[in-house]
Amino acid sequence: MKDSDIIYQESTIGKLDDGEYDGMISMGELKQHGDFGLGTFDGLNGEMVGVDGEFFQVDYKGATQAADDKITTPFAMVTFFESDKTVRLTGDYNYSKLKASLDEYLPSKDIIYAIKITGKFDYLQTRSVPKQTKPYPPLKEAVKEESIFEFRDMKGTAVGFWVPTYMKDISEQGYHLHFISEDKKSGGHMLEFKITNPTIYIDFNSNLHLSVIDD
Amino acid sequence: MKDSDIIYQESTIGKLDDGEYDGMISMGELKQHGDFGLGTFDGLNGEMVGVDGEFFQVDYKGATQAADDKITTPFAMVTFFESDKTVRLTGDYNYSKLKASLDEYLPSKDIIYAIKITGKFDYLQTRSVPKQTKPYPPLKEAVKEESIFEFRDMKGTAVGFWVPTYMKDISEQGYHLHFISEDKKSGGHMLEFKITNPTIYIDFNSNLHLSVIDD
Repeated sequence: MKDSDIIYQESTIGKLDDGEYDGMISMGELKQHGDFGLGTFDGLNGEMVGVDGEFFQVDYKGATQAADDKITTPFAMVTFFESDKTVRLTGDYNYSKLKASLDEYLPSKDIIYAIKITGKFDYLQTRSVPKQTKPYPPLKEAVKEESIFEFRDMKGTAVGFWVPTYMKDISEQGYHLHFISEDKKSGGHMLEFKITNPTIYIDFNSNLHLSVIDD
Repeated sequence: MKDSDIIYQESTIGKLDDGEYDGMISMGELKQHGDFGLGTFDGLNGEMVGVDGEFFQVDYKGATQAADDKITTPFAMVTFFESDKTVRLTGDYNYSKLKASLDEYLPSKDIIYAIKITGKFDYLQTRSVPKQTKPYPPLKEAVKEESIFEFRDMKGTAVGFWVPTYMKDISEQGYHLHFISEDKKSGGHMLEFKITNPTIYIDFNSNLHLSVIDD
Protein backbone atom coordinates (compact mmCIF):
# COMPACT_ATOMS: atom_id res chain seq x y z
CA MET A 1 0.00 0.00 0.00
CA LYS A 2 1.32 3.39 -0.97
CA ASP A 3 0.98 6.23 1.50
CA SER A 4 -0.59 8.22 -1.29
CA ASP A 5 -3.51 5.79 -1.65
CA ILE A 6 -4.97 6.26 1.84
CA ILE A 7 -7.22 8.89 3.39
CA TYR A 8 -6.70 9.53 7.09
CA GLN A 9 -9.77 10.81 8.90
CA GLU A 10 -9.88 11.94 12.51
CA SER A 11 -13.29 11.34 14.16
CA THR A 12 -16.68 11.08 12.43
CA ILE A 13 -19.12 13.63 11.05
CA GLY A 14 -21.68 12.24 13.51
CA LYS A 15 -19.54 13.19 16.49
CA LEU A 16 -18.96 16.65 15.01
CA ASP A 17 -22.72 17.01 14.36
CA ASP A 18 -23.26 16.16 18.05
CA GLY A 19 -20.99 19.00 19.18
CA GLU A 20 -17.86 17.02 19.97
CA TYR A 21 -15.45 19.87 19.20
CA ASP A 22 -12.60 19.05 21.57
CA GLY A 23 -9.36 18.65 19.66
CA MET A 24 -8.15 15.05 19.66
CA ILE A 25 -4.83 15.19 17.83
CA SER A 26 -2.33 17.94 17.12
CA MET A 27 -1.67 19.39 13.69
CA GLY A 28 1.86 18.00 14.02
CA GLU A 29 0.43 14.49 14.30
CA LEU A 30 -2.16 15.07 11.59
CA LYS A 31 0.55 16.16 9.14
CA GLN A 32 2.19 12.76 9.54
CA HIS A 33 -0.87 11.39 7.71
CA GLY A 34 -1.06 13.84 4.83
CA ASP A 35 0.04 17.03 3.11
CA PHE A 36 -3.43 17.93 1.82
CA GLY A 37 -6.88 18.12 3.35
CA LEU A 38 -9.53 19.90 5.33
CA GLY A 39 -11.16 20.00 8.74
CA THR A 40 -11.72 22.26 11.70
CA PHE A 41 -9.92 23.10 14.94
CA ASP A 42 -10.35 22.67 18.70
CA GLY A 43 -13.62 24.32 19.71
CA LEU A 44 -14.73 24.56 16.06
CA ASN A 45 -12.33 27.48 15.74
CA GLY A 46 -12.49 28.09 11.99
CA GLU A 47 -11.90 26.14 8.80
CA MET A 48 -8.79 24.06 8.07
CA VAL A 49 -7.27 23.97 4.59
CA GLY A 50 -4.08 22.06 3.79
CA VAL A 51 -2.20 21.97 0.52
CA ASP A 52 1.41 21.10 -0.40
CA GLY A 53 2.15 20.34 3.26
CA GLU A 54 1.06 23.76 4.53
CA PHE A 55 -2.06 23.91 6.72
CA PHE A 56 -4.05 27.10 7.32
CA GLN A 57 -6.71 28.25 9.76
CA VAL A 58 -9.41 30.58 8.43
CA ASP A 59 -11.18 32.14 11.41
CA TYR A 60 -14.74 33.49 11.46
CA LYS A 61 -13.53 37.01 10.72
CA GLY A 62 -11.79 35.68 7.64
CA ALA A 63 -8.32 36.11 9.12
CA THR A 64 -6.08 33.36 7.78
CA GLN A 65 -2.84 32.10 9.25
CA ALA A 66 -0.60 29.04 9.22
CA ALA A 67 -1.93 26.47 11.68
CA ASP A 68 0.60 25.88 14.44
CA ASP A 69 1.69 22.24 14.88
CA LYS A 70 0.61 22.39 18.53
CA ILE A 71 -3.05 23.27 17.99
CA THR A 72 -5.46 20.37 17.84
CA THR A 73 -8.32 19.19 15.65
CA PRO A 74 -11.57 17.38 16.48
CA PHE A 75 -12.24 16.48 12.81
CA ALA A 76 -10.05 16.37 9.73
CA MET A 77 -9.49 14.42 6.50
CA VAL A 78 -6.01 14.35 4.97
CA THR A 79 -3.95 12.44 2.42
CA PHE A 80 -0.64 12.65 0.63
CA PHE A 81 -1.99 14.12 -2.59
CA GLU A 82 -0.84 12.50 -5.80
CA SER A 83 -2.93 13.23 -8.87
CA ASP A 84 -4.14 10.11 -10.72
CA LYS A 85 -6.28 11.94 -13.24
CA THR A 86 -6.42 15.47 -14.65
CA VAL A 87 -9.75 16.76 -15.95
CA ARG A 88 -9.77 19.89 -18.10
CA LEU A 89 -13.24 21.37 -18.52
CA THR A 90 -14.17 24.18 -20.86
CA GLY A 91 -16.77 26.84 -20.17
CA ASP A 92 -18.19 28.40 -17.02
CA TYR A 93 -18.87 26.26 -13.99
CA ASN A 94 -20.61 27.00 -10.73
CA TYR A 95 -20.43 24.49 -7.85
CA SER A 96 -23.44 22.40 -8.86
CA LYS A 97 -22.48 22.24 -12.54
CA LEU A 98 -18.91 21.28 -11.62
CA LYS A 99 -20.18 18.45 -9.36
CA ALA A 100 -22.41 17.10 -12.13
CA SER A 101 -19.54 17.23 -14.63
CA LEU A 102 -16.98 15.66 -12.30
CA ASP A 103 -19.35 12.79 -11.45
CA GLU A 104 -18.74 11.42 -14.95
CA TYR A 105 -14.97 11.27 -14.36
CA LEU A 106 -15.06 9.23 -11.15
CA PRO A 107 -14.47 5.64 -12.29
CA SER A 108 -16.06 4.01 -9.23
CA LYS A 109 -18.51 5.12 -6.56
CA ASP A 110 -16.76 2.81 -4.04
CA ILE A 111 -13.53 4.70 -3.41
CA ILE A 112 -12.61 8.12 -1.99
CA TYR A 113 -11.34 10.88 -4.25
CA ALA A 114 -9.16 13.78 -3.14
CA ILE A 115 -9.85 16.77 -5.39
CA LYS A 116 -7.72 19.84 -6.11
CA ILE A 117 -8.71 22.78 -8.29
CA THR A 118 -6.08 25.45 -8.84
CA GLY A 119 -6.87 28.58 -10.78
CA LYS A 120 -8.61 31.91 -10.80
CA PHE A 121 -12.16 31.96 -9.48
CA ASP A 122 -14.32 34.63 -11.12
CA TYR A 123 -16.54 34.50 -8.06
CA LEU A 124 -16.19 32.74 -4.73
CA GLN A 125 -18.31 32.48 -1.60
CA THR A 126 -16.85 30.84 1.50
CA ARG A 127 -17.80 30.60 5.16
CA SER A 128 -16.17 30.10 8.52
CA VAL A 129 -17.52 29.51 11.99
CA PRO A 130 -16.74 31.10 15.39
CA LYS A 131 -14.99 29.22 18.18
CA GLN A 132 -17.62 27.64 20.42
CA THR A 133 -17.70 27.57 24.20
CA LYS A 134 -18.85 24.73 26.43
CA PRO A 135 -21.39 23.29 26.71
CA TYR A 136 -20.92 22.91 22.95
CA PRO A 137 -24.05 23.27 20.82
CA PRO A 138 -24.70 20.80 17.99
CA LEU A 139 -23.15 21.68 14.65
CA LYS A 140 -26.43 22.78 13.07
CA GLU A 141 -26.74 25.43 15.83
CA ALA A 142 -23.08 26.49 15.66
CA VAL A 143 -23.27 26.95 11.88
CA LYS A 144 -26.05 29.52 12.31
CA GLU A 145 -23.32 31.89 13.54
CA GLU A 146 -21.23 31.44 10.38
CA SER A 147 -19.61 34.37 8.60
CA ILE A 148 -19.90 34.44 4.82
CA PHE A 149 -17.13 35.91 2.65
CA GLU A 150 -17.30 36.87 -1.02
CA PHE A 151 -14.42 37.29 -3.42
CA ARG A 152 -14.02 38.12 -7.11
CA ASP A 153 -11.18 37.25 -9.46
CA MET A 154 -9.48 35.33 -6.68
CA LYS A 155 -6.53 33.06 -7.43
CA GLY A 156 -6.17 30.07 -5.20
CA THR A 157 -6.77 26.40 -4.60
CA ALA A 158 -9.88 24.40 -3.77
CA VAL A 159 -9.02 21.38 -1.61
CA GLY A 160 -11.34 18.55 -0.76
CA PHE A 161 -12.85 15.15 -1.26
CA TRP A 162 -15.61 13.10 -2.81
CA VAL A 163 -16.87 10.54 -0.30
CA PRO A 164 -18.90 7.39 -1.16
CA THR A 165 -22.41 6.73 0.11
CA TYR A 166 -21.34 3.94 2.49
CA MET A 167 -19.38 6.58 4.42
CA LYS A 168 -22.36 8.93 4.87
CA ASP A 169 -22.38 8.36 8.66
CA ILE A 170 -18.61 8.92 8.83
CA SER A 171 -17.94 11.94 6.63
CA GLU A 172 -19.71 14.50 4.50
CA GLN A 173 -21.00 12.41 1.60
CA GLY A 174 -20.35 13.62 -1.94
CA TYR A 175 -18.21 16.70 -2.61
CA HIS A 176 -16.71 18.80 0.21
CA LEU A 177 -14.29 21.60 -0.66
CA HIS A 178 -12.36 24.23 1.31
CA PHE A 179 -10.39 27.10 -0.25
CA ILE A 180 -7.08 28.87 0.31
CA SER A 181 -6.10 31.91 -1.74
CA GLU A 182 -2.79 32.10 -3.58
CA ASP A 183 -1.59 34.81 -1.17
CA LYS A 184 -2.65 32.61 1.79
CA LYS A 185 -4.65 35.49 3.26
CA SER A 186 -8.20 34.24 2.59
CA GLY A 187 -10.14 31.03 2.49
CA GLY A 188 -12.90 28.97 4.11
CA HIS A 189 -15.47 26.28 3.47
CA MET A 190 -16.67 26.71 -0.13
CA LEU A 191 -20.36 27.51 -0.54
CA GLU A 192 -20.49 28.69 -4.17
CA PHE A 193 -18.14 29.72 -6.94
CA LYS A 194 -17.83 30.47 -10.61
CA ILE A 195 -14.77 29.40 -12.54
CA THR A 196 -13.94 29.38 -16.26
CA ASN A 197 -12.13 26.47 -17.98
CA PRO A 198 -11.19 24.78 -14.69
CA THR A 199 -8.51 22.12 -14.41
CA ILE A 200 -9.24 19.52 -11.72
CA TYR A 201 -6.70 17.09 -10.27
CA ILE A 202 -8.15 13.87 -8.85
CA ASP A 203 -6.34 11.48 -6.50
CA PHE A 204 -7.91 7.98 -6.24
CA ASN A 205 -7.85 6.47 -2.76
CA SER A 206 -8.95 2.90 -2.12
CA ASN A 207 -7.99 2.95 1.58
CA LEU A 208 -9.44 4.78 4.57
CA HIS A 209 -7.81 5.06 7.99
CA LEU A 210 -10.47 6.19 10.43
CA SER A 211 -9.33 7.17 13.93
CA VAL A 212 -12.00 7.54 16.59
CA ILE A 213 -10.63 8.38 19.99
CA ASP A 214 -12.81 7.19 22.82
CA ASP A 215 -13.87 10.17 24.92
CA MET B 1 -0.53 3.87 17.03
CA LYS B 2 -0.12 0.26 18.05
CA ASP B 3 -0.85 -2.45 15.48
CA SER B 4 -3.14 -4.01 18.06
CA ASP B 5 -5.45 -0.98 18.13
CA ILE B 6 -6.56 -1.15 14.49
CA ILE B 7 -9.15 -3.23 12.65
CA TYR B 8 -8.36 -4.02 9.03
CA GLN B 9 -11.39 -4.60 6.84
CA GLU B 10 -11.34 -5.72 3.24
CA SER B 11 -14.32 -4.39 1.21
CA THR B 12 -17.73 -3.37 2.54
CA ILE B 13 -20.82 -5.31 3.60
CA GLY B 14 -22.72 -3.41 0.89
CA LYS B 15 -20.50 -4.84 -1.84
CA LEU B 16 -20.89 -8.33 -0.34
CA ASP B 17 -24.68 -7.84 -0.14
CA ASP B 18 -24.60 -6.93 -3.84
CA GLY B 19 -22.90 -10.22 -4.75
CA GLU B 20 -19.32 -8.98 -5.16
CA TYR B 21 -17.73 -12.30 -4.15
CA ASP B 22 -14.51 -12.16 -6.18
CA GLY B 23 -11.49 -12.47 -3.87
CA MET B 24 -9.54 -9.22 -3.71
CA ILE B 25 -6.55 -10.06 -1.51
CA SER B 26 -4.83 -13.31 -0.55
CA MET B 27 -4.92 -14.82 2.92
CA GLY B 28 -1.16 -14.28 3.03
CA GLU B 29 -1.71 -10.53 2.62
CA LEU B 30 -4.67 -10.49 5.01
CA LYS B 31 -2.59 -12.13 7.75
CA GLN B 32 -0.19 -9.19 7.58
CA HIS B 33 -3.05 -7.14 9.06
CA GLY B 34 -4.11 -9.45 11.87
CA ASP B 35 -3.96 -12.79 13.66
CA PHE B 36 -7.67 -12.87 14.53
CA GLY B 37 -10.88 -12.30 12.60
CA LEU B 38 -13.61 -13.47 10.30
CA GLY B 39 -14.82 -13.25 6.73
CA THR B 40 -15.51 -15.37 3.69
CA PHE B 41 -13.58 -16.62 0.65
CA ASP B 42 -13.47 -16.15 -3.12
CA GLY B 43 -16.90 -17.05 -4.52
CA LEU B 44 -18.43 -16.98 -1.02
CA ASN B 45 -16.81 -20.36 -0.48
CA GLY B 46 -17.52 -20.88 3.23
CA GLU B 47 -16.90 -19.07 6.49
CA MET B 48 -13.50 -17.71 7.60
CA VAL B 49 -12.41 -17.94 11.24
CA GLY B 50 -8.99 -16.78 12.43
CA VAL B 51 -7.53 -17.06 15.90
CA ASP B 52 -3.96 -17.00 17.23
CA GLY B 53 -2.64 -16.49 13.71
CA GLU B 54 -4.32 -19.59 12.26
CA PHE B 55 -7.10 -19.07 9.73
CA PHE B 56 -9.66 -21.73 8.85
CA GLN B 57 -12.22 -22.29 6.10
CA VAL B 58 -15.51 -23.96 7.08
CA ASP B 59 -17.23 -25.12 3.90
CA TYR B 60 -20.97 -25.62 3.42
CA LYS B 61 -20.67 -29.34 4.25
CA GLY B 62 -19.04 -28.38 7.54
CA ALA B 63 -15.61 -29.60 6.47
CA THR B 64 -12.98 -27.39 8.08
CA GLN B 65 -9.40 -26.90 7.02
CA ALA B 66 -6.55 -24.42 7.33
CA ALA B 67 -6.99 -21.63 4.78
CA ASP B 68 -4.09 -21.68 2.34
CA ASP B 69 -2.17 -18.38 2.07
CA LYS B 70 -2.83 -18.33 -1.67
CA ILE B 71 -6.63 -18.34 -1.58
CA THR B 72 -8.32 -14.99 -1.67
CA THR B 73 -11.08 -13.18 0.19
CA PRO B 74 -13.72 -10.70 -0.98
CA PHE B 75 -14.61 -9.63 2.60
CA ALA B 76 -12.82 -9.97 5.92
CA MET B 77 -12.22 -8.15 9.23
CA VAL B 78 -9.02 -8.84 11.14
CA THR B 79 -6.90 -7.41 13.95
CA PHE B 80 -3.94 -8.33 16.10
CA PHE B 81 -5.95 -9.41 19.12
CA GLU B 82 -4.84 -8.04 22.47
CA SER B 83 -7.38 -8.25 25.27
CA ASP B 84 -8.06 -4.93 26.99
CA LYS B 85 -10.84 -6.19 29.25
CA THR B 86 -11.91 -9.59 30.58
CA VAL B 87 -15.57 -10.09 31.47
CA ARG B 88 -16.54 -13.12 33.56
CA LEU B 89 -20.28 -13.79 33.56
CA THR B 90 -22.07 -16.31 35.73
CA GLY B 91 -25.12 -18.32 34.71
CA ASP B 92 -26.48 -19.56 31.41
CA TYR B 93 -26.31 -17.36 28.33
CA ASN B 94 -27.77 -17.75 24.87
CA TYR B 95 -26.69 -15.38 22.08
CA SER B 96 -29.26 -12.65 22.76
CA LYS B 97 -28.72 -12.67 26.54
CA LEU B 98 -24.96 -12.54 26.04
CA LYS B 99 -25.29 -9.53 23.69
CA ALA B 100 -27.47 -7.68 26.21
CA SER B 101 -25.00 -8.39 29.02
CA LEU B 102 -21.92 -7.47 27.00
CA ASP B 103 -23.48 -4.17 25.95
CA GLU B 104 -22.98 -2.91 29.51
CA TYR B 105 -19.24 -3.62 29.36
CA LEU B 106 -18.50 -1.65 26.19
CA PRO B 107 -17.23 1.73 27.43
CA SER B 108 -18.08 3.64 24.23
CA LYS B 109 -20.38 3.07 21.28
CA ASP B 110 -17.88 4.91 19.04
CA ILE B 111 -15.09 2.34 18.74
CA ILE B 112 -14.81 -1.22 17.38
CA TYR B 113 -14.45 -4.17 19.74
CA ALA B 114 -12.86 -7.49 18.85
CA ILE B 115 -14.46 -10.22 20.97
CA LYS B 116 -13.16 -13.68 21.87
CA ILE B 117 -15.03 -16.29 23.89
CA THR B 118 -13.14 -19.46 24.69
CA GLY B 119 -14.83 -22.33 26.50
CA LYS B 120 -17.26 -25.20 26.27
CA PHE B 121 -20.55 -24.47 24.54
CA ASP B 122 -23.43 -26.59 25.90
CA TYR B 123 -25.18 -26.00 22.57
CA LEU B 124 -24.07 -24.40 19.35
CA GLN B 125 -25.71 -23.70 16.00
CA THR B 126 -23.58 -22.46 13.10
CA ARG B 127 -24.00 -22.07 9.37
CA SER B 128 -21.94 -21.99 6.23
CA VAL B 129 -22.71 -21.15 2.63
CA PRO B 130 -21.92 -22.90 -0.68
CA LYS B 131 -19.47 -21.49 -3.23
CA GLN B 132 -21.41 -19.40 -5.73
CA THR B 133 -21.04 -19.36 -9.49
CA LYS B 134 -21.26 -16.35 -11.80
CA PRO B 135 -23.35 -14.39 -12.36
CA TYR B 136 -23.25 -14.07 -8.57
CA PRO B 137 -26.62 -13.70 -6.81
CA PRO B 138 -27.03 -11.11 -4.03
CA LEU B 139 -26.10 -12.29 -0.53
CA LYS B 140 -29.71 -12.61 0.62
CA GLU B 141 -30.27 -15.16 -2.19
CA ALA B 142 -26.98 -17.01 -1.62
CA VAL B 143 -27.71 -17.36 2.10
CA LYS B 144 -30.94 -19.24 1.33
CA GLU B 145 -28.68 -22.17 0.39
CA GLU B 146 -26.92 -22.18 3.76
CA SER B 147 -26.21 -25.38 5.67
CA ILE B 148 -26.94 -25.34 9.41
CA PHE B 149 -24.83 -27.37 11.86
CA GLU B 150 -25.65 -28.21 15.47
CA PHE B 151 -23.23 -29.23 18.18
CA ARG B 152 -23.47 -30.10 21.89
CA ASP B 153 -20.77 -29.83 24.56
CA MET B 154 -18.39 -28.39 22.02
CA LYS B 155 -15.11 -26.81 23.16
CA GLY B 156 -13.83 -24.00 21.02
CA THR B 157 -13.53 -20.27 20.40
CA ALA B 158 -16.01 -17.67 19.24
CA VAL B 159 -14.24 -14.95 17.23
CA GLY B 160 -15.77 -11.69 16.18
CA PHE B 161 -16.53 -8.02 16.54
CA TRP B 162 -18.92 -5.39 17.80
CA VAL B 163 -19.26 -2.64 15.18
CA PRO B 164 -20.63 0.89 15.85
CA THR B 165 -23.74 2.30 14.19
CA TYR B 166 -21.82 4.75 12.00
CA MET B 167 -20.28 1.71 10.26
CA LYS B 168 -23.63 0.10 9.43
CA ASP B 169 -23.10 0.59 5.68
CA ILE B 170 -19.55 -0.79 5.92
CA SER B 171 -19.83 -3.85 8.14
CA GLU B 172 -22.36 -5.95 10.03
CA GLN B 173 -23.47 -3.57 12.79
CA GLY B 174 -23.51 -4.86 16.37
CA TYR B 175 -22.21 -8.33 17.23
CA HIS B 176 -20.91 -10.72 14.57
CA LEU B 177 -19.29 -14.00 15.68
CA HIS B 178 -17.78 -17.00 13.91
CA PHE B 179 -16.69 -20.23 15.64
CA ILE B 180 -13.83 -22.69 15.45
CA SER B 181 -13.78 -25.86 17.55
CA GLU B 182 -10.83 -26.76 19.76
CA ASP B 183 -9.99 -29.69 17.47
CA LYS B 184 -10.20 -27.33 14.43
CA LYS B 185 -12.60 -29.74 12.72
CA SER B 186 -15.84 -27.71 12.98
CA GLY B 187 -17.01 -24.14 12.90
CA GLY B 188 -19.03 -21.55 11.01
CA HIS B 189 -21.00 -18.34 11.38
CA MET B 190 -22.68 -18.46 14.81
CA LEU B 191 -26.47 -18.39 14.77
CA GLU B 192 -27.28 -19.50 18.34
CA PHE B 193 -25.55 -20.98 21.35
CA LYS B 194 -25.84 -21.75 25.03
CA ILE B 195 -22.86 -21.36 27.32
CA THR B 196 -22.48 -21.46 31.11
CA ASN B 197 -20.28 -19.03 33.06
CA PRO B 198 -18.61 -17.62 29.93
CA THR B 199 -15.40 -15.61 30.00
CA ILE B 200 -15.22 -12.95 27.29
CA TYR B 201 -12.05 -11.16 26.17
CA ILE B 202 -12.57 -7.72 24.63
CA ASP B 203 -10.01 -5.83 22.53
CA PHE B 204 -10.73 -2.08 22.14
CA ASN B 205 -9.93 -0.65 18.70
CA SER B 206 -10.12 3.06 17.99
CA ASN B 207 -8.79 2.76 14.44
CA LEU B 208 -10.24 1.27 11.27
CA HIS B 209 -8.33 0.59 8.07
CA LEU B 210 -10.86 0.03 5.31
CA SER B 211 -9.58 -1.22 1.96
CA VAL B 212 -11.94 -1.03 -0.99
CA ILE B 213 -10.40 -2.18 -4.23
CA ASP B 214 -11.90 -0.58 -7.29
CA ASP B 215 -13.38 -3.27 -9.52
